[in-house]
Amino acid sequence: MRGLMMDAPLLITTILRHAERNHPDQEIVSVTSDHERHRYRYREFADRARQVANALDQLGAGSEARIATIAWNDFRHLELYYGVSGSGRVLHTINPRLFEEQLVYIINHAEDEWIFVDPAFIAMLEKVEDQCPTVKGYVVMTSAEAMPQTSLKNVQCYETLVSAQSTQYNWPELDERTASCLCYTSGTTGNPKGVLYDHRSSVLHAYGMALPDTTSLSATDAVLAVVPMFHVNAWGFPYASLLVGAKMVFPGPKLSVPETLTDLINDEQVTVAGAVPTVWLGLLDYIRKTGRSLEPLNRTCIGGSACPVSMMEEFRDEHGVTVLHAWGMTEMSPLGVLNRPKPAQIGLAGEELREQIAKQGRAVPGVEIKITDDDNNELPWDGEAYGALKVRGYWVCADYYRLDGTAGSHEDGWFETGDVATIDPHGFLKITDRTKDVIKSGGEWISSIELENIAVAHPQVQEAAVVGHIHTKWQERPLLVVVPNPGEQPDQGELLSWFDGKVAKWWIPNGVVFVEEIPHTATGKISKLTLRNQLEDYRFPDDDAA
Amino acid sequence: MRGLMMDAPLLITTILRHAERNHPDQEIVSVTSDHERHRYRYREFADRARQVANALDQLGAGSEARIATIAWNDFRHLELYYGVSGSGRVLHTINPRLFEEQLVYIINHAEDEWIFVDPAFIAMLEKVEDQCPTVKGYVVMTSAEAMPQTSLKNVQCYETLVSAQSTQYNWPELDERTASCLCYTSGTTGNPKGVLYDHRSSVLHAYGMALPDTTSLSATDAVLAVVPMFHVNAWGFPYASLLVGAKMVFPGPKLSVPETLTDLINDEQVTVAGAVPTVWLGLLDYIRKTGRSLEPLNRTCIGGSACPVSMMEEFRDEHGVTVLHAWGMTEMSPLGVLNRPKPAQIGLAGEELREQIAKQGRAVPGVEIKITDDDNNELPWDGEAYGALKVRGYWVCADYYRLDGTAGSHEDGWFETGDVATIDPHGFLKITDRTKDVIKSGGEWISSIELENIAVAHPQVQEAAVVGHIHTKWQERPLLVVVPNPGEQPDQGELLSWFDGKVAKWWIPNGVVFVEEIPHTATGKISKLTLRNQLEDYRFPDDDAA
Repeated sequence: MRGLMMDAPLLITTILRHAERNHPDQEIVSVTSDHERHRYRYREFADRARQVANALDQLGAGSEARIATIAWNDFRHLELYYGVSGSGRVLHTINPRLFEEQLVYIINHAEDEWIFVDPAFIAMLEKVEDQCPTVKGYVVMTSAEAMPQTSLKNVQCYETLVSAQSTQYNWPELDERTASCLCYTSGTTGNPKGVLYDHRSSVLHAYGMALPDTTSLSATDAVLAVVPMFHVNAWGFPYASLLVGAKMVFPGPKLSVPETLTDLINDEQVTVAGAVPTVWLGLLDYIRKTGRSLEPLNRTCIGGSACPVSMMEEFRDEHGVTVLHAWGMTEMSPLGVLNRPKPAQIGLAGEELREQIAKQGRAVPGVEIKITDDDNNELPWDGEAYGALKVRGYWVCADYYRLDGTAGSHEDGWFETGDVATIDPHGFLKITDRTKDVIKSGGEWISSIELENIAVAHPQVQEAAVVGHIHTKWQERPLLVVVPNPGEQPDQGELLSWFDGKVAKWWIPNGVVFVEEIPHTATGKISKLTLRNQLEDYRFPDDDAA
Repeated sequence: MRGLMMDAPLLITTILRHAERNHPDQEIVSVTSDHERHRYRYREFADRARQVANALDQLGAGSEARIATIAWNDFRHLELYYGVSGSGRVLHTINPRLFEEQLVYIINHAEDEWIFVDPAFIAMLEKVEDQCPTVKGYVVMTSAEAMPQTSLKNVQCYETLVSAQSTQYNWPELDERTASCLCYTSGTTGNPKGVLYDHRSSVLHAYGMALPDTTSLSATDAVLAVVPMFHVNAWGFPYASLLVGAKMVFPGPKLSVPETLTDLINDEQVTVAGAVPTVWLGLLDYIRKTGRSLEPLNRTCIGGSACPVSMMEEFRDEHGVTVLHAWGMTEMSPLGVLNRPKPAQIGLAGEELREQIAKQGRAVPGVEIKITDDDNNELPWDGEAYGALKVRGYWVCADYYRLDGTAGSHEDGWFETGDVATIDPHGFLKITDRTKDVIKSGGEWISSIELENIAVAHPQVQEAAVVGHIHTKWQERPLLVVVPNPGEQPDQGELLSWFDGKVAKWWIPNGVVFVEEIPHTATGKISKLTLRNQLEDYRFPDDDAA
């Protein structure tokens, strides 16, 4: 029997309508290349989003066109978030840090029709323009006065184009499964893969994200989205903030300038911010040196890579800021788990508390998690067993764009994250490795990440990586790769004895290699594939058969 | 273009699975007729919900059967919430305060197959059993030892039936539009009308309800659901609490015993409670007399009828409890608006603050509100204009069960609430009257509720009602009906002069009638229809033509 409730689709424009009607005076503040501090209100933003939709119609963009952006976080990018998706088109956010060939690949794979670009990234596009036949033209996200010279063909100025449009637009009543955004993951192997979000998944993710045990967003919050809008939709903040009517603050091109971030936090009374650990490292360093305050800040959402416990403690003890340690993926919109206490965690202190906050957290309602062994048997939530992490839920991808059957098409409907994790009896997950980086020594698993965390704590080590390397007796053994601190020449034996008592004896690496640089991917992660290729000829000293 | 996200239906069993996996140790505490203080954990609850589903299969209940409950709030009722809906059947929660003929009407209209009943309500059913041909049998919600004698045919004991079942059950992967619950509204005119919720609306309502600017539910909360589970699903607390993993506390038959509620709040560290104003009046009176503490309590959700400002101030100033003033309807699952400040309301004080908290609140994300005039033109949000309140959204009913085309079937897809309201520029709604109770004097509208609120503040008045009454010159004028305080004989002229300066002169009633009792509906509201009928022969003193 069917219920008799209204047929109201979960649409991004429903968020926009709610925001405009209920919070017309709420502010959106941005740093941009042409504004030191741009500010307007939801009511003007909603008008502008409708002008964007009209502009796309005028440009002749198809009803399902992929509209790309290569841009920093600011009000214009937000207008495109709502104007492009709201009109039924697909917003394709491009990471400007991609290698040139990846850039060309994804523009062609997505068949982008128009590219909206910040002035800073025009040069990048000029180089590849000839290789992108689907692109009909470019819109430079700036004002007429600030319009740069460019060799790009069919170029328009965003402000000239948008401000000429009507502020009226009838948003289509789309099917909620209509694609809204496309975001490519840049894996370490193969071509980037596109995750195609839809309106339903985006709206449900916004509800899940705003919950008290997630980021706890309210109309009295001011949200600083440092995490780029080309990086999994800035973790969903652009949707969740408008859903609840929060103030939004964008750093534009200054996203890694600690002084600007500190100014914004204090001037705009920012209560919530989201960024990867490296941004916070820089900010905390700046705060230590200048003695400036982070007083308005109440909590920071940290993900993208594991957050060091020392950083969480510094935020908590020095600034009264709660760190929301989280884990997710582009394929998960991105929220998977977030570390908020349950009653049993409230009283923890000392080492127990440190162990607790080092975990990435528990499943956000709407996401299911499990860990399995090599035979896909579910492993217990005992905090000890670790296995391949699989997820499913309302905002998890089922497949990649135009790569049918790559993801989530397993018989049991779970998405393989490629991560290895433990889950404790309270449901708190801890990522221990990437599936492809875990070291399989004589049939047992060794976590490369745990070894790296120990290595970087050594006073002579600047950066460290651990990879599984061929060993005749054990199939694979851990190999430690180290970039020493400037001027230091660590001793190999001393480095390895550093692990004594910190891990099981059989986990200790069998060799050390010193390098000047460790290779990284476009998103700043260690490229273990490149590293393994570089070390192909290495042989362990104890590998007799070598 | 369709997105490529997982097809994960919004199901009540998804909430249950999440709760069981992530919060197995969380508690559910109940007062019942056979337990002074029953307690178990989510893990046992989930087992029991599956046992209920197996019991229904064993009873031969059809796959879309309506399964009725006539019961107080406790763990068994909660098991039925999940076990009945989860198995694809429809939970029909019956208000035991219904008049006998309404009871018979809704059992037959719903075609209930089985009725699960608290021992307290068996006598009620024995009287009507012969008039309910669709009912195959009864399950008494108690233990074998406490099983009462009854003349009901085909009677089973809940504990005997349920505990014999397997704790394994494969919840069906239902379409999310499958009906989950049926709840009849008892209007003042005509037969009760059934609202048929579905899984999707229930899950979305749970997300909306748990948001920080709504009830702000967390896994560290303990929720006391005083509002009956037969009254719009206890306002949705049974779903939202499990969604976030909160402790649940149920008062059973003691829902209006202030001592029990105070015990539960203190013993179980209740942080959130939900009830109608009359329950809180009794509780605050008891607290004042005994000097007991409400220390654990952080916030109370109050709706059902307008909450007096004095009560909100007493909660805030004496007990540090935030009152969440709210408005909703059975047809809205029930949440429509809730009063949480936006930045502009944070600094209010004195009379401005009192006016602010007297409002029912702003729209919960997922609900849209508007007010219209007689010609369905939308009226401005200026806090002055008042008009018919209309709503739409994810958890608003489109139609009533087996009464096709009654509700929400208007061309514009809005549900007519039957309320009259103002909405201020910040989006805060204030209910001023019921559409059918508003007094139309010479083409202008007068709010009966505003006049009643002024009248009850008079020291000699115990209860007051204001109805529109025929007047030759003005078509309709306000007539004040008063139950004086015991021993008091108020003066008619003095009572009317009480309104001077408090409302516009032309709002002041033209006459007063003193009565010993004002008629009420089954849900405790003033029955203005009955009152108007009783006063049919009254003539205003200034009605010359009378």
